[in-house]
Formats: sequence, C-alpha cells, structure tokens
Amino acid sequence: NPPGAVANEQTERNCSLTPPYLPSTAVNTTLQLKELRALMSPLSISAYIIPDTDAHLSEYISPRDARLAFMTGFTGSAGTAVVTPTKAVLWTDSRYWVQAERQMDCNWDLKRDGGGVCNHLQFPPLETQEDYSVNLMSSNRSLKSMPANLVDQVWKERPSIPPGGLIQRSWQMKVEQIRSQMTDSPYKPTALLLSALDETAWLFNMRGSDIPYNPFFYSYTLLTMNEIWLFVHMERITDELKVYLNTSCDGPLCVQLKSYDSVLDDLKMYVDQPGIKVWIGTEYTNYALYEIITPEDKLMTSSYSPVLTTKAVKDETEQQILRDAHVRDAVAVIQLLMWLEKVVPEGKETELTAAKYVDTCRRRVHTINKKGPSFDTISASGPNAALAHYSPTAENNRKLTVDEMYLVDSGGQYLDGTTDITRTVHWGTPTPMQKEAFTRVLMGNIEISRTIFPSGTRGVNMEMLGRRALWEVGLNYGHGTGHGVGNYFGVHEWPVGFQSNNIPFREGMFTSIEPGYYKENDFGIRIEDVAVIVPVTTKYGHNYLTFDTVSLVPYDRKLIDTSLLSSEQLQWLNSYYETIRKLVGLELDQQELHEEKDWMLRNTEPFVAPGSSASVSSSSLTLILLTVTLHNII
Amino acid sequence: NPPGAVANEQTERNCSLTPPYLPSTAVNTTLQLKELRALMSPLSISAYIIPDTDAHLSEYISPRDARLAFMTGFTGSAGTAVVTPTKAVLWTDSRYWVQAERQMDCNWDLKRDGGGVCNHLQFPPLETQEDYSVNLMSSNRSLKSMPANLVDQVWKERPSIPPGGLIQRSWQMKVEQIRSQMTDSPYKPTALLLSALDETAWLFNMRGSDIPYNPFFYSYTLLTMNEIWLFVHMERITDELKVYLNTSCDGPLCVQLKSYDSVLDDLKMYVDQPGIKVWIGTEYTNYALYEIITPEDKLMTSSYSPVLTTKAVKDETEQQILRDAHVRDAVAVIQLLMWLEKVVPEGKETELTAAKYVDTCRRRVHTINKKGPSFDTISASGPNAALAHYSPTAENNRKLTVDEMYLVDSGGQYLDGTTDITRTVHWGTPTPMQKEAFTRVLMGNIEISRTIFPSGTRGVNMEMLGRRALWEVGLNYGHGTGHGVGNYFGVHEWPVGFQSNNIPFREGMFTSIEPGYYKENDFGIRIEDVAVIVPVTTKYGHNYLTFDTVSLVPYDRKLIDTSLLSSEQLQWLNSYYETIRKLVGLELDQQELHEEKDWMLRNTEPFVAPGSSASVSSSSLTLILLTVTLHNII
Repeated sequence: NPPGAVANEQTERNCSLTPPYLPSTAVNTTLQLKELRALMSPLSISAYIIPDTDAHLSEYISPRDARLAFMTGFTGSAGTAVVTPTKAVLWTDSRYWVQAERQMDCNWDLKRDGGGVCNHLQFPPLETQEDYSVNLMSSNRSLKSMPANLVDQVWKERPSIPPGGLIQRSWQMKVEQIRSQMTDSPYKPTALLLSALDETAWLFNMRGSDIPYNPFFYSYTLLTMNEIWLFVHMERITDELKVYLNTSCDGPLCVQLKSYDSVLDDLKMYVDQPGIKVWIGTEYTNYALYEIITPEDKLMTSSYSPVLTTKAVKDETEQQILRDAHVRDAVAVIQLLMWLEKVVPEGKETELTAAKYVDTCRRRVHTINKKGPSFDTISASGPNAALAHYSPTAENNRKLTVDEMYLVDSGGQYLDGTTDITRTVHWGTPTPMQKEAFTRVLMGNIEISRTIFPSGTRGVNMEMLGRRALWEVGLNYGHGTGHGVGNYFGVHEWPVGFQSNNIPFREGMFTSIEPGYYKENDFGIRIEDVAVIVPVTTKYGHNYLTFDTVSLVPYDRKLIDTSLLSSEQLQWLNSYYETIRKLVGLELDQQELHEEKDWMLRNTEPFVAPGSSASVSSSSLTLILLTVTLHNII
Repeated sequence: NPPGAVANEQTERNCSLTPPYLPSTAVNTTLQLKELRALMSPLSISAYIIPDTDAHLSEYISPRDARLAFMTGFTGSAGTAVVTPTKAVLWTDSRYWVQAERQMDCNWDLKRDGGGVCNHLQFPPLETQEDYSVNLMSSNRSLKSMPANLVDQVWKERPSIPPGGLIQRSWQMKVEQIRSQMTDSPYKPTALLLSALDETAWLFNMRGSDIPYNPFFYSYTLLTMNEIWLFVHMERITDELKVYLNTSCDGPLCVQLKSYDSVLDDLKMYVDQPGIKVWIGTEYTNYALYEIITPEDKLMTSSYSPVLTTKAVKDETEQQILRDAHVRDAVAVIQLLMWLEKVVPEGKETELTAAKYVDTCRRRVHTINKKGPSFDTISASGPNAALAHYSPTAENNRKLTVDEMYLVDSGGQYLDGTTDITRTVHWGTPTPMQKEAFTRVLMGNIEISRTIFPSGTRGVNMEMLGRRALWEVGLNYGHGTGHGVGNYFGVHEWPVGFQSNNIPFREGMFTSIEPGYYKENDFGIRIEDVAVIVPVTTKYGHNYLTFDTVSLVPYDRKLIDTSLLSSEQLQWLNSYYETIRKLVGLELDQQELHEEKDWMLRNTEPFVAPGSSASVSSSSLTLILLTVTLHNII
C-alpha cells in the first residue's frame, strides 16, 4: 500500500501507480480477456460488445446471463463493455462509477456515461443493430464457460386459484386475439415472433422462475395463422403442461414444442419459404434474430409486438384481481409502518431489518403469496434515500432514527398481481423544508391522479403535473414518473408509463405514479402509488379517462402541510382515505388485525381545509362571542 | 344539369355522370397534365410529385411557386399531388375536401387525408426524400410556363430605426456567432447551407417582399469558415446593399454574391472538394440540395440549422422592441373592439368590414408600421368561428350581431416586431355554455402563462395545461397550442412552440399561447397571446423560467365566470390587467386616445374573488347587522 493513503482511498483501484493498486474487491479478468481475444482473433473480429441484458433484452437477468459481470468484474445493473485486441472499455453512468473503480482491475478503462438515472425506472434501452452485430452471433461460443444455472420450473398461471369467479382469457383466446390483429394489419404478416420473456408467458398463461423477481421462463414463440411454435427447454415441460398446451395434435390451436436452442435455425427455415412476412417488436428482439429476417420485404416491425400492447390493457377480471392484490399488499405495508413507529425510537432497527420485516409481512399474512418480493426492497434512511439507486447491504446498512426521514419502496409478487409502493415517513420532527418538499411531492402525485384526460393521451404529455408543485419553488427530481405493472408479472411492465416511448393511455392500463425529491447527503422523498385507468363521466364529452389509485396505504400526516393543498387536492386526499378505510378496513377485519385497523383509522382521518373552514369557524366563533356579549348586555 | 338537383349540390363536381358535371369554379387541367406527361415520358419518370410548398419549404408561398394550384386548380394551402402517365391524384385534409371538389376537374382523383388541422398552426411537414426525389430535380423545366412574379425589393432591416437605443447584432456579429457554433460542433462541419428564407434574412439583417405576409426574399447562403456565399437575384442588390455586405473585398467577413440560380452548381463545386462537410437543417432543405452532398461523410444534419435555433432566442434589444411592437399593436385591437361594441348593434357591420377596420387601425395609428398584416385576418362570427380554417370572403361574409360570438385573430408586421393576437367577444348575452367554455379556455391560457418550469423544458410537455380545464368537462380543441413569432419576420417562427418537433424553451424565446374551443355549427373560441420566456426567482432552485405575456388586450369580461377560477388564476389575471393599464395606458396617453383609454380602464378593472372575499364580506355584513341590532336594543 502506498504510504500515507487513508483507508477509504484504498477501496478504489489506482492504475496510475506502478505496480497498479487494486483493492480486494477487484476481479482479475486477465484470463477471461485472453480467452475472448483468442476466440476473436481467428475470426478477425475487431471489437466484441458485451451488453448488460440477455438475449431477450430482459430488465432483470439470470446469473447465467451476467456476461458483463463475468467479463469485467463489474456487477452494476447498467453498462456496456467493448473488447478489442488491445483495449477493454466499460461505459456506465454516474450511479456506478465508484462501484466500477472498486470492482474492475486495470485491464479495463472506465468511460463515464452522462446523467444518473433512477434504476427502479430504468429499462433496457433500444439496442442499435451495431451494438448487437458483433456480439450476439457469437455469444454461445465465446461465453460457453459461463455457469448454466437453469431451474426447471415452468407452470400454468395461478394453479391455486379456483376457477369459480376468477376466469380469465384462456391461451387459446389470446392466440386468436393476436391472430386477428395480424389479419387486420395492412402489412399482412404471416408470423409473429415473440422474444421478450413476458410475451410468451402471457400468451400461454404460464410462469417460471428463471429470472429474479420476474416469474418468467426462457422461451420464444413463433405464431403463424395455423401453427404455434413454442421454443423452450423441452425437458422442463411436464406431461400435464403438454396436455394443457395441446401438443399432441396439429391444428392451429395445437402447440408445437421446439427446442429453445433451435430458434435461430427454425426461424431461418421459416423465413426461407416464399410469401412470408415476420412481425417483430424492435424493442425486445435481439439482432441475431432480426438479421435472419431478410430480404427486407419479409420483415414487419413495430416498437412493441401486439402481445405487449394487448397485455397492457387488463380485462375486467385482471383489473379486479390486481386491485385485490393491492388490498392485501396494503396490509403488509401498514404492518411495517406501524411496527417501525413503535420500534424505531428504541434505536435497534436498521434499513436491513425493516426490509426484512416487510418481506416477512407479505409472506406471513397472505397464503396466496408464495412468490416473494417483486424487486429488491429499497429501504433507505436519511442521506441513503437521496441516492437514486440504493438497496441496503451489510456494508452500507444505516440505523433508523427519529432524526431522519425514511423511504421504503417495496413490492410483492402475488399469484393474482404484482405490487409496487413507496412511502416516506419521519418518526420525529421534520424540518419545514422536509415538510414542504414532501407536501409538494404529494401534490404532484395527486395532480396526476385526479386529472381527467381524453383516451389516448400520452403519459409523457401529462407527467409534468407530477413536477409542477415542485418546480414552483425550484425543486425537481431526476427520474421518470411511472411505469406499468402486471398481473403476477414484471414490476416494470413496459410499454405503459409516462416516458416518451410509452404508448398512449387507455382504459384498463395500470401504472405507477411516483414523483419524488432528493436532497443530496440529506434525505430523499418518493411517494409511489399504482393506479388503474378508468372511464369518467364528464359534463359535455365522451371517452374521457382518469386514474383510480389501487395502492391503499396512508401518507405520513406529519409531513403534510395542508395549507399548500388546493381544495381539489384536499378533496381528492379525503376521498382516497375513505377508500382506504373501506377496502383495507374490511381486509383488516377479515384478518382480525385490530391494532392495524386502529392505526389505519387514525392515519386516515379526514383533513380539514385550513383556509375556508378555518376562517368560517373563526368568524362563527366571533358571532358566538358577540351573541354572548349581547346576552350579557341584555 | 341533372333533373332535380338542388342549387348547392351543383357547386361540387360529379365525375360519375356521363358527361361529368363540373361547376363553374372547376379548372380545366387537361392541357397542363398533357404537357407534364409529355415531359415525363422521354425521361421515363413514372410519377411526378407536386408539393404545396416552394424550394425553401416556406409556409407561405409566392404566387410564382403555386405549383399545386397551377397543376390541379385546387388553391387550398395544404395538399400533395401525384401525376403518373395514367393517373392524377390529390391528397388533402378534411378542411379542404369540399373546396377540392369545387375546384378540380375530373382529371383528378381526390384522396381524403385524415384529421382537420388548424391552418394557422400548420407548418410545412418534414418532407421525405422520396417526396422530393422526382419533383425538384426537374421543377425548373417542367414548370417553366408558370408566371415569374418577382418583386425587386431587398433592404436592410429597420432602416428607419435610429441607431441610438436600438442597436442590435450586426450581420458580422451573427456570422461570427454561427461560425463559432460550427467550430464547437464535434462533427467539424466546414460549411453551413441555409435554405429557409428567414435564415438568410436573419443572418444579414435584410428583408424583402417576395412572400405574402413574410418579409423574406429568395436566397440561399453557404457559410464556410472563411467565405460567405450569398445566392440572390443579383440585379436586386443595390449599390448601397453591396457596401453594406462588403462585397468588394475577399476576407472571411466579405460577402460573395452569387446568382440565385447557380446554387445547385456552386454547391456541387464546393462539395467536390476534399475534406469538406456541409451542415444542413433537414426540416428546411429540399432534396435537390441534399442529394448533392455525397458521399455521406460530407454531410452533417440536424433538424434545424444553428441559425434557426440561435434566432429563436431574442437578445435584450430584440426582446424590448418586440414588446414595444405589442404595446402599439394593442392599441389597434382595442380600437377595433371598442368600435365593434358601438356599431354592431346598428346591424351594418360584417366580418369583412371588421377585418378591414383592424387593418386600418394598425396602419393609421403607427407610422412605424407600413408593412400591413402578418397574416390573413381571421374575422369570424357565430358558426364561421367554429371552422378550423376560416377567413371571410365576399361569398361567405357574415353580418355581425349581438346574438353571436365573434372571434378575431389578427396580427401586424412592424419594423421592430411581428404580432399575433386572438380575442373572442360577445356583444349580447352569452349562453351559460359559452361562458363556461370561454372561461375554461382562458383558464388554459392562464395555466400555461403562470407556470414555472426548469429551463430546457419542452413545450409539448406543458401544453396539456392549456387543455386541462376543458378536459375536466369533456371539451377539447383540435389544433396546436402555440408557435414562435419573430422580430419583423414570420408570424409562425419555427422551431419554437408547443409541438413535439419544437425545441426546448429557453429564456428570450417568444411563443403564442392559444387554447380554444370550437362547437360545430355554433361558435368558436380562441384566446391567443404572445409571451416571452423570462427567468424567475424560486425559493430553492436556479435556472427556472416562466412566461411574461406581451400581448396587452383585455378579455371580454362578460364571458368570464370568475367562480371557476382558482385564486392563483384570478391573481394572475389581475396582475396582467395592471400591466395593461400601465403599459397601454401610457401609449394611449401619448397618442391622446382618451376614449380608448376609458374603454381600456373599464375593461381592466380588477376582479374580486367570488369565493373567499365574498364569504368574508358576507360574514362582515352579518357582524355589522348584529352590531346594528345591538345598538337598537341598547
């Protein structure tokens, strides 16, 4: 170690020293690079690109697909590496610069990408063809040394739900629905290729556990007007599933099972026929598959496949069970908040114990939930909550105290729905600035939630309502304002949301609404609710929509400055609290959680407008006093 | 004429009859088509496309460039025609279907394009390469029979403004400003090609009158780091202009005059040199020029040239003179509104006389204005105002009455600035629905105007504020919400505004804000103001902006339902009226327009909040009554 270096300087590599200084967290990548370059050389490959996603462009990836980490040592969720015969470079954004300096050895250069983005709203970017041209074609060969960590579970959706009230679209109905969209297309596609894992899982009402947090399984589907090719690891398909999928027949509603590994060859075979045209969604199709579909007149593209756009709109049953999941989920979050209120003053709880507690609440209370959290819980106190990307670890775990704000962003996977909710609380006395910032974040949440808009309006054209109250005093936040959620599916269900590449809002879509405010080295605020888009009756027009919030947990009263709220905002808030009292009250009664019910009722007392009502009562008071005086005089 | 046809059926052609029925308004295009096809045939051209714009992609075009009208007979402002050896087809949108059926003969098929768009917010669309490939290369040859109607005025900007207080950037400063942007570009362009007419006019501080309403002259500029090539009709450049442009020297700030007609050849000569790269703005460069810049590595593109993005931000002087123009313009509009209030009840005035009156006011009052209206005045009563695209003609001219709403959208060209303002009034008793719709349009205008946002926010992400109060009751409007304006330039100055292809808002930009509501066959409402984007101090943040409205004409009080306004909206309105009283009051005093001043003061009385203040006064009243009672008792 160089003399005079202080402890925390040594956690990052220093490649300018001779010999270079490497912390113990750095990974020696010399061997991997040597092997990769040995493979590149005979093929005259001048650059090999390693993306952070898998062949399905998944947001969350299985350890077996962690190619970036394997090659670079860097384990952050976003980055791209390029290896040439003489150089090795990693690009990542500001959230990860320190981590990269700690994990990479001096084989690697770090290129600092712009702007910190909030990971929990981060999606796989549109991959350019160039990005993929070198990589994917040879990925099997070059990365064959990576551990194959396949699990063998694939199952029908919600096997435990009785078929009584909760009937949903069968996979056969879905296939016909998608086929009719193919028929209706003026471009007359003959086949639809599904690459995203949730596309195949949705189409067949099947789930798996190949991906952390997302109940997906490795698969592709090629759907034509008279055949269905399902590419999966054949050995994982049970006899029961074969019956379910009609694999022993040959009509247009019989599934032909194909090996997952044969998708390139089988697609090529299909494309080689005359008169075909394959529809792909460009946002989730990798270049290796795209490249096969030539000449150009055999290709039809849209950003999103019709499966993704159809899945985005939940039918009545799906809406109801997703609402139900949120009622049960609210109980778990209420239990966490009530518990923290009690135990934090004792000084023993930490971000990690809180994260564990809410996870336990979700598992304990609801037998229907055996699937765990829908993402890695963000449990962040004080300055930790100001980091755009944060989950507690043994290393950075912070004690919870009555002197700091606390932010918890968590969600559960239930067999009927996926949840995602953020609450920010203070157990002591918030500063005026914390209270104002919290109230303005809440105003943003309410302004979006209560707005009425024509069907087909884009989220990106409304999301400033989530920021406006903050902008008014010069505050803002650096992440998106919301994302779709699924029915026991991805917690980030693209393409619904408030970003520019999201599709227009329609009745039956679910989206999170989550403005925030982050003060560096101090505190972080986010208020996140999931809402469903519902029709609304207007005085003059038709086809107008609004949001109906399905997350049902009260906000911290201590942090709300009602004098900042408009009467419409206050009215919305009181009506939302009425809904919580009714729906969560019933659930708490059924679960016989009396203490939780009291807590919930205390925290959902209606607010009184400080402006009008206060002045009315003060003038009433004056009148009473006068009357009293009058009586005395008389 | 077919028996039984009624009079108004005969105004449109009927090509299904034998022989076809043609109204007297239809143009015989047989000869034109024959000549065009005779030219196409030897060149084996299979389709010839005729756009609605000129070679500079101008919004308004000179009669000499009215190729679409010449070929088709159709004189609407938007449309595209395609001629093949056997077919001739015109595409236009719903505003023009009837007009096309009246003006075209049966040589032409009409294809109905979707959606009515409001013409006054309509800009030349992005022309695809395909659209232009056939057309522009041969346009000189095939359309040589068209009348050349060149005027010969080109002049320096504002020659009549004394150089004292109103100094602005010299053209040499502008050239250096643009060159430094070329140097700063990572793509290292060696030249910038300017095709839009306002680009060259802005760069050299020159104006002309080749285009109706827009003070432009035919020109191109090729700017390199050491040369300036100005392509104009040489015979129009006076000796004075030659001195002004430094045409007799050779340095980097000397202008080399080139013939307008040699731009293709000269550009080709430039491009043929090694090591060059030409920067073009794709939104305003025609395909003939684009096509010359090959191979690809000699081309650098952005949507808008650095001239357009630089011009969009007005410097302090430009801001001040544009504000001043709006003060004088307000006087003209106030004179119109005051006059109409007086004369309409007499029943003699019409849309046309009103349009003429406001034009006369603009000419009469201000010696600085010799340039007439900035666009064809929209003067529309009752149902006429509900038409997205309407200007009165002798044919459709409507009498003004106290029973109908009236909308007037007009603007002037002043030597210091261009104006554009819309007011909607009612001289009798509006219906409750009219009043509500007007108030909600006004709320939209105010909500945009008063919003605070970070520098760099896009208009498209805020424009829903202009619609939100309407959406709340199921109303909406079918056009954009605003566009840039210039300093004695285009009344629609791209690329500023609220549409998706506008650039982000920065301090010093001017934009119109113009929500509306249109009830078919009944009435139309639009409230349009021009505002400048100004910095605003916020409690916590830096670099925040808001709008400062520079149009200074009061809204019709009779149409405002103050009970719908929030206290913030009412406060904005009162503060806006204070500004009118101050700025326009001073101008009216200087012009000794006493009657106008009284009218203005009456119409800008502060509004009293019906909610809070009313309840305060009613409770005060109660107290007073009680006191009175008390006294009586005693």
